[in-house]
Parts: sequence; C-alpha cells; structure tokens
Amino acid sequence: MSRQEPAGPADRRSVLDFDYETDVLVIGYGCAGAAAALEARSRGADVIVLERASGGGGSSAASGGEIYLGAGTPIQSACGFTDTAEDMEAYLLAALGPSADAAKIRMYSRGSLEHYDWLTKQGVPFKPSFWGTPSWVPPTDDGLMWLGENAYPFTGLAKPAPRGHRVTAKGFGGKVLMDVLCRAVEEAGAGIHTDTYATQLILDGPRVVGVTARRFGKPVTYRARRGVILTTGGFADNAEMVAQHAPQLIGLGVTSDGGDDGHGIKMAQAAGAAVQRMSAAQVGITLVPALAVRGMLVNAVGQRFINEDQYPGMLGQAALFRQDLAVWIILDEKSFEEVPENERWGVLPHYVAETTGELEQEIGMPDGALTASASEYNRHAAAGEDPYFHKDKRWVRPLEAPFAAIDVSRGMASPELGASGRGGAKVFSLGGLRTGLDGEVLDVSGSPMPGLYAAGRVTSGLHGHGYISGTSLGDGTFFGRRAGAAAAEQAEAPAG
Amino acid sequence: MSRQEPAGPADRRSVLDFDYETDVLVIGYGCAGAAAALEARSRGADVIVLERASGGGGSSAASGGEIYLGAGTPIQSACGFTDTAEDMEAYLLAALGPSADAAKIRMYSRGSLEHYDWLTKQGVPFKPSFWGTPSWVPPTDDGLMWLGENAYPFTGLAKPAPRGHRVTAKGFGGKVLMDVLCRAVEEAGAGIHTDTYATQLILDGPRVVGVTARRFGKPVTYRARRGVILTTGGFADNAEMVAQHAPQLIGLGVTSDGGDDGHGIKMAQAAGAAVQRMSAAQVGITLVPALAVRGMLVNAVGQRFINEDQYPGMLGQAALFRQDLAVWIILDEKSFEEVPENERWGVLPHYVAETTGELEQEIGMPDGALTASASEYNRHAAAGEDPYFHKDKRWVRPLEAPFAAIDVSRGMASPELGASGRGGAKVFSLGGLRTGLDGEVLDVSGSPMPGLYAAGRVTSGLHGHGYISGTSLGDGTFFGRRAGAAAAEQAEAPAG
Repeated sequence: MSRQEPAGPADRRSVLDFDYETDVLVIGYGCAGAAAALEARSRGADVIVLERASGGGGSSAASGGEIYLGAGTPIQSACGFTDTAEDMEAYLLAALGPSADAAKIRMYSRGSLEHYDWLTKQGVPFKPSFWGTPSWVPPTDDGLMWLGENAYPFTGLAKPAPRGHRVTAKGFGGKVLMDVLCRAVEEAGAGIHTDTYATQLILDGPRVVGVTARRFGKPVTYRARRGVILTTGGFADNAEMVAQHAPQLIGLGVTSDGGDDGHGIKMAQAAGAAVQRMSAAQVGITLVPALAVRGMLVNAVGQRFINEDQYPGMLGQAALFRQDLAVWIILDEKSFEEVPENERWGVLPHYVAETTGELEQEIGMPDGALTASASEYNRHAAAGEDPYFHKDKRWVRPLEAPFAAIDVSRGMASPELGASGRGGAKVFSLGGLRTGLDGEVLDVSGSPMPGLYAAGRVTSGLHGHGYISGTSLGDGTFFGRRAGAAAAEQAEAPAG
Repeated sequence: MSRQEPAGPADRRSVLDFDYETDVLVIGYGCAGAAAALEARSRGADVIVLERASGGGGSSAASGGEIYLGAGTPIQSACGFTDTAEDMEAYLLAALGPSADAAKIRMYSRGSLEHYDWLTKQGVPFKPSFWGTPSWVPPTDDGLMWLGENAYPFTGLAKPAPRGHRVTAKGFGGKVLMDVLCRAVEEAGAGIHTDTYATQLILDGPRVVGVTARRFGKPVTYRARRGVILTTGGFADNAEMVAQHAPQLIGLGVTSDGGDDGHGIKMAQAAGAAVQRMSAAQVGITLVPALAVRGMLVNAVGQRFINEDQYPGMLGQAALFRQDLAVWIILDEKSFEEVPENERWGVLPHYVAETTGELEQEIGMPDGALTASASEYNRHAAAGEDPYFHKDKRWVRPLEAPFAAIDVSRGMASPELGASGRGGAKVFSLGGLRTGLDGEVLDVSGSPMPGLYAAGRVTSGLHGHGYISGTSLGDGTFFGRRAGAAAAEQAEAPAG
C-alpha cells in the first residue's frame, strides 16, 4: 500500500491462471462501488467487489451523508419547496464551475427524481423536515437543507430550492447510508472480497480484462469477463500525489477513511487514462457557518472577501485558494449569543475587545485594518445592504461592541469537524479520471478504454473547480449505477 | 494537428521500416530542443531535430528573452552586484512554490555560472548594464534586471540580487536567442527536419525507440537508437486541455508561437508518463509595472491584495487566480507623469477624478470602497509605511488629487504585450511531464521510462505553482542540455 506501489499494467499473457472470475469486477466498496454492484447485479451479471479494508463503507461512510438531489423530490415537496431539473442544472453548472461537466450535470439533474426513488428503494432514509440556517450538517436529524442555492450570485442564476438531502442521522449520515447500501449489495448476491488491494490492471491488447491484487501479502488475480469498475476514491491521503497535483492542500487534514491513496487513478493512468482538474478540492474549512454568516469573514489584513452566506464549502475554497487559510470570523457578542450552543460546535471566541482597534491589535492585524473594514460594513449594514459582496439582508446588521474574533485556523472542538494536520481545513481531492456519461474511462485522446469504467472520487465527476456537498455521494451513486449497468451489458471479452 | 489526434503509442512490431535513424531524436526546436541537440552533438551522437513549423524558434522565439541566471555571473559583477548560488536557490524555492522542485532548483542554481558560460559560448549576447525599475522587459537594451528578488516577502528569505539576464535586444529578446542557438545547432551538424509533426511514440516493450510523424500529410517514421527527447512546449493553445486542467485560463490570450497544443504531453501520457501541476500558469497580466508600483493595485471592490513592487508575473498570478482578473491600477497624476512615456507602453488612464469618491463611482465600485482603501493607504504612506503588504518605502507616498484609474482588463496599446481573447492577460501553461534531474520522463509509479527524455514547457520543470520570468528559457536550456547529454550516453536499443 506504499506510494511506490508499481501501478502496472500487467499483460494478460503474463497471467498464467486467474484465481477468480466474474462478469463485473468492482474495485472499492464505497458508495460508487455499492451502486455499481447493485445495478450490475440487477441486470443479471455476476459481480465481485474488492475492498482494501476489512469491510464496506470507504470514505463515503466518513462523510456527512448529504446527497444532492432535486427537481421536486417528495422531501422537497413535503417541506413546501418546488423545484425543477432546469434550475438544479443551472445552479450546479455555476456552483461547480468553472468548466464543470455540462453533459453530466444535465443528465444528473434530469435523472434526479428517478435516482431519489432508487435510493429510497434500497432503504436509504430521508426525513421530510427542513433545516433552514447555514450549517455543514443540521444539528438535528432534519432531512433537507440549503447547499448554497439561496446566496448571491446563484440567486440570480437559478430559482433557489434547497437540495441537500441528508440521510437520516444524528450528526454525520455517511455511515447510515453505507450500512444500507452494503446490506442491499449483500442481499443482491454480489461477492465481497475484503482485505484485498488491487495493484495492477490486466490488459489483453487494449482491453482491460481483470486485475492483480494482494490479500494478506499474497498475490491473487481476478478476471472480469465484461468490465472492471474503479471506485477506489481520490488521492488526498497520498502526500506525493498531493504535492504533485494540489500543493495548496499539503499538510491539511483529510476527510477520508485513510485509504484515498490514489492508486486506482495511477493504475488507470499507467494504462493510458486521462486525468483532469487534479488541483481541485473540497475544503471543509473549520468554521461554524451560523457564526460566520452573522459577522464578517476577513483575511489577514481585515478585508472581507466573500458573502458569508455562501455554502461553507465555497467559503472554504475561497479561504484556502485565495487567502491561504489565514481567515478570521469577526462578530459581536449579540451575534454569538444568537446562535444556540448546539450549533456552535464547541467554538468560543479567541479574542474579545470593546473596539475594533483593540481587536485588530490583539489579532496582530495592521493598525486600522479591521476598523476600516468594520466601518464600511456597518455603514452599509445600517441601510440593510452589503454592496461589497451581496450577503442576504437577513444576515446584515451593524456590529456593535463588544466585538469578538475567531481564528478559523484553530479549528473546532468537535472531533468530527476538527482538522488534523495543518489547521483550518480538512480536504479531499476532486480531480481524477476523465470519464464519459456511462462511466467509461477515457484515454488521453478522448477515446473510451475498452473494459474499464470508473465512478466516484477516483473520477473528476461533475466537477470543474467548484464543489457543493452532496455532489460526491450524488455523482458517486448516480454514475456508479450507470457504470454498473454499462459494464453488465458489455460483450464478454474472449477468454484469451 | 487537431486536438483529436490519437496520441498513441505505436508498437515497434507494427512498424515495418524506419524512414530515418539517428542516435538522439529531438522533438521540437525551441530553446530546450536546441540545447538538447547541441549537448548530444558535442558528445558525438547523431542528432535529428523534428519541428512542426517551417523553421526553428518555437515559443521561445516569441518570449521576452529573459534567462534566470545568478550566483555571481560576469554581468552581475559588472553591474556591481554580488550573489551566491545559495541565495539564488532560496529565492527560487520560495518564488516558484508551493511545492517547487527542490532538487532541480538546487542543481540549477549551482550550475548557473557554468550555464552562463555555455550560453555565451554559443554566442548568446548579454549586455553588462542594469535596468533598475519594475518592468516586464527593459525599454532599453540593458542586460540585467530585477525579477522580484527585491520585494517582500522574498527580501527576508534571501539576499536580493537581480538575476534577470536579458538577451541583448531592443524589446523582446527571444528571437535573438533562438537565432543564435539555431545557428549553433546547424553548425554542430544536427539534422533539422522542419514541417514534421511527431504523432506517436514507438515502443519496443517498455522502451521508447522512435516516433511516427507526419510531413505535408505523409507519414514518416524515425528510429532513435539512444533516446527520444520531447521539447514540444506546453498546452496553452489546446482549448480542450486548458478546460480539463487549467479552467481559469479559458479564453485568455496565449504567449506562444501558436503550436503549444500539448500533443507531446499526451504522447508521453499515453505511454504511461506522469504529469504534474497542470493548473499552473505564467500570467502575463497586461499591466504596466512602473505605473502599478507607484499606486495601488486593487480588486473589484477597491481592496489592495499584494505589494505592487512584486515581480509583475506574481501580480498576474494573484490577479487571475485570486481576483478573477478584475483589477485596477489606482494612481495620481503625479505618479503617472513620473513614468517616462517609453515605459508606459501606450497606456492612458481610463478614468480621472478629483476625489476617490468620484473615481469609485465612475468605475462602478461600491460606495466608499476606494475611498476607504485610499484613506488607509495614504494614512500609512504619510509615515512611509505599508503595513498591509510591505511595499518597499521607495514606492510609498500618499496619493494626491487628481486621481486616475487604469482598467487592467483593457490591456495595453503595445501589440507585443497586449492580450488577445479575453482581456487582461496572456498566459502559458507551466504544468506538464514529470521528469528527473537528467530529463528522464517518469511514469506514474515514479520510474524512468526507458529511452524517453523531456525538457522545457512540455515538463513542469522547476516549478510548483509560482512563476518568475527567465525560468522557462532557463530550465529549458539547462535541463535540455542535461537531457541531451543523458540520451547521448544511453546504450543503443537493439535494432528489434
């Protein structure tokens, strides 16, 4: 499992004997792998799932459990919201850009209702209740939430509707989702081979026909008659790949099960697969959205740089990629006390002062920096306006003494949300293999690689540079299903 | 030459007959290709250079002609500057980061004096005279200039010395450099095959043994007994690759000869080569450094975001990657008139006003935005200080009415520096193949690919995410030479 693991590929002619054979071989047992296995089984294909860990779940099980769904789901309707596929598409195109995958987003938005039905049919629970204020995940078990749709500039681009469908759970819901999907996969009769780390693709001419793997130190080989589906996750746990592709993430904490080592990406690359947008990342900034939205989010010289009511992942991307994570929440006592304790994730102010002048001095900002910013903010807030960044009126009012500052880089008290490593954010990679609409992996000339499919964070999926929660479990399960269906319907490779 | 050109590789067994044979085959005739050819010839190897255009030069010939050299060159000494390899190394590590190639930078800095000698031995002219104020290239034919070494934060990291060695020319010097190098290559007896576009690498097992190519529509094949060296440039002219890897560059003008289509990168990738830092770019922002440094460089809401005395390429990267190129130079009449006309590149103020309040209104900034910024700037400038961004005192004084604003996105009058496409900047890609210290191309497992070398902008070279002028002609010629030497000394591949 070392980074230096050779990534192959192996030649079919060098493989004397396959230890196992199946129609569809799925590598990785997170949400994309589970969805691929289910769809392939439902089409009558034999399926084996390889998983490096001792059980299913992967990084999906470590996630918040939000799935981006819309176009008028029963949960949206029950909560009193109307929505269309067109508005969903327009929002995702803008929020996941620049250069998001327009064709995939269109298909994903139009297929959203059907995908919601499929998920609930597997037994995934969603509660028809709505959480209305900015948060990473609701502190309740509410099932629907905003994921940035109701913030500038997106309000002008698409009719806002909340599309964060959160798998019913207290706290993070990824574990619940994966428990349900793994049970469904087992009931569907797929073979689950745990503790099995795929090492190399096996090629017969240009066609991928299986993999070599390692189980408890011993080599094993798998033949896939119809297709291999890579669902091995991203590369945020691989320090060398992070340095090569996304150096701004170096040293930050990682949101994963610890196994996002990028080897699946490298196996495919070694056989000629294309990668794209390798520098993009989700940035789970260690910031309490309900606090940030009530104050000013400022950089190292006291300047605001974004409307604080944007989806917190957008705040995180702006903070990391544009401000090097040197950011503070500036608010007043009144705002702090307005936020119920269970929504504060254990965060307390790091500095308190009677004037912004004292506060900027305590933080170590240039003389006048915070005072100038706060004075402009307050002057406009008195008129209920934010002409700088267009935060919604609902969150705009002049800040009053006493003032407080929260150093975002110090993280949160909650271990679930807190950062390990360099403070300020936990991240995962968004870049990866380039795939078509059926999950077919594309080579650098843009042609499908016969026998090879991929879904989830091993691919770049829907994403350009932007990210919205729910689009990883979302595109992982949606395009995982499509890859499973396509592989199951592929003609058998000759036994060779 | 279409983007959809299949990138190979071809199997040796499918090639009946090679049309040409040589020891070392160089693909691309810019500065890296010329340096590789010269070094391989000097070791007695037969060399053929393939070039898609009708003559040598490539994008190197379209460049400013700055080469990053130091450690005490005769030009530095003649101009009264002392320098060390250690200071050069420390500056480059910081300026080209995060995640610059430390081993390459160390070798490049320590080899700088020898490389200067080699260049002058080929006949490259450098004039021992110094240009001292911020500029993209001196408006004179001066041979030495600052490339950001004398600006915060770098002044605290390494003893500053100017290391911009500009090939003697009025205006851009890239053409002069390439005329000299191409003449030397021809005198050295390398075969030059122009109008020849390499299409696929030819592999014999894992070893690269040649290329297929196209000349006036007809296929031709080349065998390389010792090695193939890719020096085909970056991918900024390939809109599809830009969208996949560096979407923030979409629609911007490109600094190249028009042939940076990334095909060399794709040929190597198709054979399993690794790429890195594909989102990085040089950003030739269409801004007059001598004007910017005397005023405030501000974003769309009037905020400063960098010390204006940084190397203009750094201003460009900050403006593009952090401010979406929506930036303005704010200065006063006195500053504007201080800059001699020949240093203004034809730029005139787009807005003039008696107060910053009027100016912000004319530009369309929020009410108070520019006034708040200018007031903070002036308050500190009165004390000769810039506690926000640490611009050197030399450039700090309060701005006085009347004020002027220059919209950077409107570009410059000078066609050499002006942007085509979306305004504001001309760019080229910095990401590319991952190579070792001898230019050996590395596969995704980190192992050298037998018979394959690369140098120049087809590789990611020295660079992390940052960029300083002179490091492209610099690393192209330096590691081009090393690749040429290594390929020439490689054992012959069996005729197969």
